Amino acid sequence: MADILAAVLRRVKPREADIRFVEEVASELLRRTDEAISRLGFNARAMLVGSVARGTWLRQEPDIDIFILFDEGLTREELEEKGLAVAREVAGAAGEEKFAEHPYVTMKFRGLDIDLVPCFDVADPKRIKSAVDRSPHHQRYVKEKLTPQLADEVLLLKQFATGIGVYGAELKKQGFSGYLCELLILHYGSFTKLVEAASRWLPGEMIDISSHYSDRSELKLMFENQPLVVVDPVDPNRNAAAAVSLQNFSIFVRACQDFQHRPGLKFFFPRQVRLLEPRELDRILKKRGTRIFCVVFRSPRVVPDVLFPQLRKTERAIVTRLAQEGFEVLRSDVWANSNSAILIELSVSSLPGVKTRVGPPPNVPAESFVREHLGSKSYLAGPMVDAAGRMVFELKREWTDALDLLKDILSQRASFGKHVAEAIARKYQIYEGAKLKALLRDSGFREFLSEYFTRRLPWYR
Amino acid sequence: MADILAAVLRRVKPREADIRFVEEVASELLRRTDEAISRLGFNARAMLVGSVARGTWLRQEPDIDIFILFDEGLTREELEEKGLAVAREVAGAAGEEKFAEHPYVTMKFRGLDIDLVPCFDVADPKRIKSAVDRSPHHQRYVKEKLTPQLADEVLLLKQFATGIGVYGAELKKQGFSGYLCELLILHYGSFTKLVEAASRWLPGEMIDISSHYSDRSELKLMFENQPLVVVDPVDPNRNAAAAVSLQNFSIFVRACQDFQHRPGLKFFFPRQVRLLEPRELDRILKKRGTRIFCVVFRSPRVVPDVLFPQLRKTERAIVTRLAQEGFEVLRSDVWANSNSAILIELSVSSLPGVKTRVGPPPNVPAESFVREHLGSKSYLAGPMVDAAGRMVFELKREWTDALDLLKDILSQRASFGKHVAEAIARKYQIYEGAKLKALLRDSGFREFLSEYFTRRLPWYR
Repeated sequence: MADILAAVLRRVKPREADIRFVEEVASELLRRTDEAISRLGFNARAMLVGSVARGTWLRQEPDIDIFILFDEGLTREELEEKGLAVAREVAGAAGEEKFAEHPYVTMKFRGLDIDLVPCFDVADPKRIKSAVDRSPHHQRYVKEKLTPQLADEVLLLKQFATGIGVYGAELKKQGFSGYLCELLILHYGSFTKLVEAASRWLPGEMIDISSHYSDRSELKLMFENQPLVVVDPVDPNRNAAAAVSLQNFSIFVRACQDFQHRPGLKFFFPRQVRLLEPRELDRILKKRGTRIFCVVFRSPRVVPDVLFPQLRKTERAIVTRLAQEGFEVLRSDVWANSNSAILIELSVSSLPGVKTRVGPPPNVPAESFVREHLGSKSYLAGPMVDAAGRMVFELKREWTDALDLLKDILSQRASFGKHVAEAIARKYQIYEGAKLKALLRDSGFREFLSEYFTRRLPWYR
Repeated sequence: MADILAAVLRRVKPREADIRFVEEVASELLRRTDEAISRLGFNARAMLVGSVARGTWLRQEPDIDIFILFDEGLTREELEEKGLAVAREVAGAAGEEKFAEHPYVTMKFRGLDIDLVPCFDVADPKRIKSAVDRSPHHQRYVKEKLTPQLADEVLLLKQFATGIGVYGAELKKQGFSGYLCELLILHYGSFTKLVEAASRWLPGEMIDISSHYSDRSELKLMFENQPLVVVDPVDPNRNAAAAVSLQNFSIFVRACQDFQHRPGLKFFFPRQVRLLEPRELDRILKKRGTRIFCVVFRSPRVVPDVLFPQLRKTERAIVTRLAQEGFEVLRSDVWANSNSAILIELSVSSLPGVKTRVGPPPNVPAESFVREHLGSKSYLAGPMVDAAGRMVFELKREWTDALDLLKDILSQRASFGKHVAEAIARKYQIYEGAKLKALLRDSGFREFLSEYFTRRLPWYR
């Protein structure tokens, strides 16, 4: 076990040269930012936050986050205006404006990814005005608690989460943030102790690092229906693990169970997904014998944190409606780059002309149920009573072919994500079965389809 | 309402001439039986039981039940031997031996159906040796309690149960026996009061006519999981409604609800099922668009009370196995005369090559689940974790065509009824879809299929 962890650290821990370079870049950016602030005559200061500031960055991801802290007396508009002015001054032509809760600037600088983020300098983290205002507080909290020894443990956890595919709190991923990894290590003391504990986690697991809540019932009331709750020590009203989906929670717990049982490098560095050739895809499609539809359209111009929840909402709306009409979906998934795709795989795509409508048991009045269906245009047989004693009608099924229904769903767009609905309203295409091969030309799409059709938890690859 | 009930009685109540004739026939048979007993030198006596003896027979069914009561000191073999000797002596060449719990003789005599049933003359009805020994006790109990007024109410109930299709306790029907109808009228006092009460019955309804049980919990313990419990006043350990299936219970309750709401003759005398022409069957099959298999074989030589439970058990075994393999059965039914038939109607008869195998949630060990499927010959994809956090594999489906699977089920015959399994092992044929038309030539079969495809509760016809 110790050998494995040492080997992981050798691969992911920044070497002295890496550290020197990154720190040099960070210092330069901090200096430039402070210079820009004074040049513009603002009352603000630059602060390095994030993994580089805490020494918890993976050698492969030396992302630098420079926060520009303004007085909390400013209005939101003033903050945005002044903050962007500073960021633009620093980044120049290299900068690119992005919009999350409010605008920030990203840039490439000396080969590194840099974020320049304006925020309010709020004294009490419970009274922040925007999520980003919390980062300086997180920075101070972690910096104070984290020893170099613990920082190594954070690296192991981050690489583990990366390897098993649950690293990242963005809404595309719904996994474990870097800050969450740091909190978990601070709480459990080491990567192996965390793995041991997490292999016994149940959905609804609650961790109150700073013992803010007096008892579990209080905690439960506060954070209902969340697979994992890690109370944020700088703001006990916040769950630092709120982004973690039940799916990713479960993957993490499984990975911990399997790692305990048989540790290995494959958890940290799994095999890549092998890309499928068109011929292989043909063979797989034939073997599965399912009916597969891929709805493809231009991605709406919104950030991934807006796009992905909308894609999933749309996927859910389609799957739910198909299921309501009797077409069970075997599996489905979404994907996006400049195009978006919703993939729907059906067990059965064609259904008979008759469907069963089950009514109330004998103790519940059935008059209106009977009247409704006896007079219905789709009447076929009934009322009858089934073996369980319930009233039953047989009716003509409205949709007998899944593709017809899918086209109807896409024309109605009920319960779709807003921007996705607009994009689909403009134009979409349905690729079906072997036609999917045309999509393999796009390398991103090819990776998506290859992973979909050969899906395995990464450490089983 | 009163008009309707009077009209029903006019049609079903025996007229004076009917009564005179039936009583004359009954007297003659009783005399003949007593003569046969003394001719053979046995110690026994004849007794008229059943609806004719109580004046609760429908004009259309003047069945005469003559019981031959022997001393309870006899062995079972002696009873059967001596009882059959008497019955044979009475019936002569007209008699036909039947076997239920033990043998009895049926005959046609002066146009009427006669049963000659040997039984033990048991003083205490709780200590009977065979179900038929209870009949003389039922006879005495009902005869003592039933006024001519109440007998009319029994006729209404019997005709109502006949009309809605739930009259008869035989295992083919699983409905309401004549004795049960009598008890219900004795308990509620009239047909309309029963209808009023029964329209509010819930499955698990308990009626303790002679107040044998001190409280309901005792009753519940005694008669678990029965849709209707009517404690037999001559034997409180027996449920006089034990034959009633949940389905027929529910049909009865629904009929009472509907009759209360809108009384009519159609409950007592519903329209006959219209027989389908081959062309109509074609049209219906096309409209339904389902896949229909009818397994036909020579009926095994057993009485209907043995055959029908076995047919239903076999039907259940087939439906269960089809469902386990992913083929959902829309509806199924059984039928028999000299041939037996099991009809299976499927929504979907062809499935893709892939099936999903869902495993445990994160808190349950999955090691053996994973080991089993990862190494399986039918492996396609997985392990993966679904949105609900459960481990999932995708496996090759063993059966993708329902007909292939059905043939396999019929070759294994697991959980089939014994005699039915033997009959199917000898020979069977599967009629599919339009081939069913060939079966319309048999008038019994034609009625069965016509009812199946136009099924409606009788009072909605």
